[in-house]
Amino acid sequence: MNYQDISNPSLQSWVDVPQGSDFPIQNLPFGIFSKGNNASRVGVAIGEHVLDLAVLMEEGFFDELSLKDGSVFHESVLNPMIALGKDATRAIRGRVADILKSDNPELRDRTDLHKEALHLQKNCKMYLPLHIGDYTDFYSSIEHATNVGTMFRDPKNALLPNWKHLPVGYHGRASSIVISGTPIIRPLGQTKDAEQELPVFGPSKRLDFELEMAFVVGKNTSMGQRVSTQEAENYIFGFALFNDWSARDIQTWEYVPLGPFLAKNFASSLSPWIVTLDALEPFRVATPVQEPAVLPYLQFEGLKNFDIQLEVYLQPEGSSETKICSSNFKYMYWNVNQQLAHHTVNGCNIKIGDLMASGTISGPTPDSYGSMLELAWKGTKPLKMADGSERRFINDGDTVIMRGFAQKGTMRIGFGEVSGKVLPAN
Amino acid sequence: MNYQDISNPSLQSWVDVPQGSDFPIQNLPFGIFSKGNNASRVGVAIGEHVLDLAVLMEEGFFDELSLKDGSVFHESVLNPMIALGKDATRAIRGRVADILKSDNPELRDRTDLHKEALHLQKNCKMYLPLHIGDYTDFYSSIEHATNVGTMFRDPKNALLPNWKHLPVGYHGRASSIVISGTPIIRPLGQTKDAEQELPVFGPSKRLDFELEMAFVVGKNTSMGQRVSTQEAENYIFGFALFNDWSARDIQTWEYVPLGPFLAKNFASSLSPWIVTLDALEPFRVATPVQEPAVLPYLQFEGLKNFDIQLEVYLQPEGSSETKICSSNFKYMYWNVNQQLAHHTVNGCNIKIGDLMASGTISGPTPDSYGSMLELAWKGTKPLKMADGSERRFINDGDTVIMRGFAQKGTMRIGFGEVSGKVLPAN
Repeated sequence: MNYQDISNPSLQSWVDVPQGSDFPIQNLPFGIFSKGNNASRVGVAIGEHVLDLAVLMEEGFFDELSLKDGSVFHESVLNPMIALGKDATRAIRGRVADILKSDNPELRDRTDLHKEALHLQKNCKMYLPLHIGDYTDFYSSIEHATNVGTMFRDPKNALLPNWKHLPVGYHGRASSIVISGTPIIRPLGQTKDAEQELPVFGPSKRLDFELEMAFVVGKNTSMGQRVSTQEAENYIFGFALFNDWSARDIQTWEYVPLGPFLAKNFASSLSPWIVTLDALEPFRVATPVQEPAVLPYLQFEGLKNFDIQLEVYLQPEGSSETKICSSNFKYMYWNVNQQLAHHTVNGCNIKIGDLMASGTISGPTPDSYGSMLELAWKGTKPLKMADGSERRFINDGDTVIMRGFAQKGTMRIGFGEVSGKVLPAN
Repeated sequence: MNYQDISNPSLQSWVDVPQGSDFPIQNLPFGIFSKGNNASRVGVAIGEHVLDLAVLMEEGFFDELSLKDGSVFHESVLNPMIALGKDATRAIRGRVADILKSDNPELRDRTDLHKEALHLQKNCKMYLPLHIGDYTDFYSSIEHATNVGTMFRDPKNALLPNWKHLPVGYHGRASSIVISGTPIIRPLGQTKDAEQELPVFGPSKRLDFELEMAFVVGKNTSMGQRVSTQEAENYIFGFALFNDWSARDIQTWEYVPLGPFLAKNFASSLSPWIVTLDALEPFRVATPVQEPAVLPYLQFEGLKNFDIQLEVYLQPEGSSETKICSSNFKYMYWNVNQQLAHHTVNGCNIKIGDLMASGTISGPTPDSYGSMLELAWKGTKPLKMADGSERRFINDGDTVIMRGFAQKGTMRIGFGEVSGKVLPAN
């Protein structure tokens, strides 16, 4: 099945997909999972299940694709599969759609195979699905940059002079990117409040999340090669939710002049399912108007933003979730094509599995801000939790949960969630 | 032979080591090389030769070490060998010293093996010797930070408030770190001079080098684990020369507020031989006095700087080299133990093969500054080349060569060189 046909809302699967599921047959995101004592391998989410591609491969379900390398489904990261190329991964996803559609008996009627090939997600363990060579974080939400500039600099000149001319970005730490569900230990570090004469050392007192999306690089370049905005999507495999945990007090003291370092590199969390660019096709929307006009290498044509609803929930220890943010990926001032064109315009090479995150995604209204820093406005407007407690930043024992989905009528392409519970400093 | 004994200046090898060689038997650095059609593998430099550890392994020379995994010498990076642990790599280097010392006939008299096991360096190809998971760059030279602060901010307050309280660092790009000798393509990018109203796009006009040393992480940590200054050296495998190429005009426009990005990530160059920490033992010197006192987690005992002479040469196309800088690694205000303790104090995990660079190493005198920016003082004091031409920054066709060595009497522990020729923007 070709990727456009998979997006047809009337397509249905013989695997039960509950209403409101993030993973209908139109989605089919890739992840790395294990079940029981089996080694981790490639799976595709469908409804509440994971389809085991390694088992399907062994049973001959992918024979017709003549893949260059069938062992990719047995790998513990998606990189080797992605390295087969976009034609191949499209063919794999197309074949999976084919296998799963209601009227195809191939696997549907092989009930003997279901126990091996189709697992309940709740019985599976998910893993960081990528070997991430390099991780880049952008700063592409104009609302977020304006909020930060307003709080810490001058409300009248909230945006720095370069902000509307280039998608500001910086390098982050790849080693400390963890899969959703991994506990986050509150970082220790140096901080210095304005009224303090000397810095002090201790657990961060202003631990924050950043609501982000990240895209996965799907194709290598060589040094010296540039990727144009027009070609950029050939180099993007898919998207996931990303929480760029931040210690605001450490950040304030350390970040001038070379940028955030220990305030960020203690942990970032990634959601387990990589939703392909193809699955998001129906949700393309225009990028906000860019004024002043950008330089030619950043100009682009077509709909390059995506209408993806984003939500953040905070769950205090032993209590229920409170929704604290509703934002949308469509607010991004700089789109991913521009980010990639900018990143490579100097000849910087990119590699399959590199992760490029959006930066905090804030919307125009106070309930759409993508960080506690903004939601509680530097601690001046504490957030009320369902259990009656208040939050200025994240407390020990709090779990931060981000969810994301694109919706059109009854068709919902979801990302699942990225969550992390904060443990006390050790 | 134990590592202290290798440092004995009277130790000699049966392999000829010319006077002034960087690679006497007291050094024995590790690298990755290939000869002819052989696959790349682990080698050790001795005089003008490379000793092929893969061949020695096959011939049984390492049998007595009972290594957990003998295939490490056949790998295309040093990471698996380093992962055997410091005891093992010390034993390997000790055994190599044993095999090479004058009075040991084992290999000396196996002349049949010499052609296979001992290659002239000039006939070998060298490779990036590491899989670099993450690359961090510090900013630890007080002279460099002071020079930059003087040029771009206020000479009276050249150092930013945090500078003497923590070793400022930031994350760089791992994918574009290349082995010495790789040509460097002049980057394109956005720049905006103060007098320009809008940014312009084109080849960088202020291409620069940064004279740095980098250390290689030799042991993994888990997230949440801290490495103390006391333990730090257990996590350091060795050192190399590092050129952190920088486009000053791109940097000026992009780096506020999140730090350098495209100004740096187009390329960094690493020298091919990793000199072990053990080989540098005789060259320990005191760290400069740190005043004000640093926080307890940054305090340390003992001699933690290294007296390593560093030189930079510039060779215009078709002309001879001009020495443009003589600096020394001993000037570092923050030592590597402090850098590593700081990097992990928030629980950030490190991995074998991670590279941590010093930042530009400038000394106290104008001829010891470690970048063109400082040597030519923002272009106001052009440097004279041997061929009569002048340089404010790096021209197309210029080759920048950095050399480093520690010397005590006739004993010289050298790093070889890291070089790169600048090609025109493409």
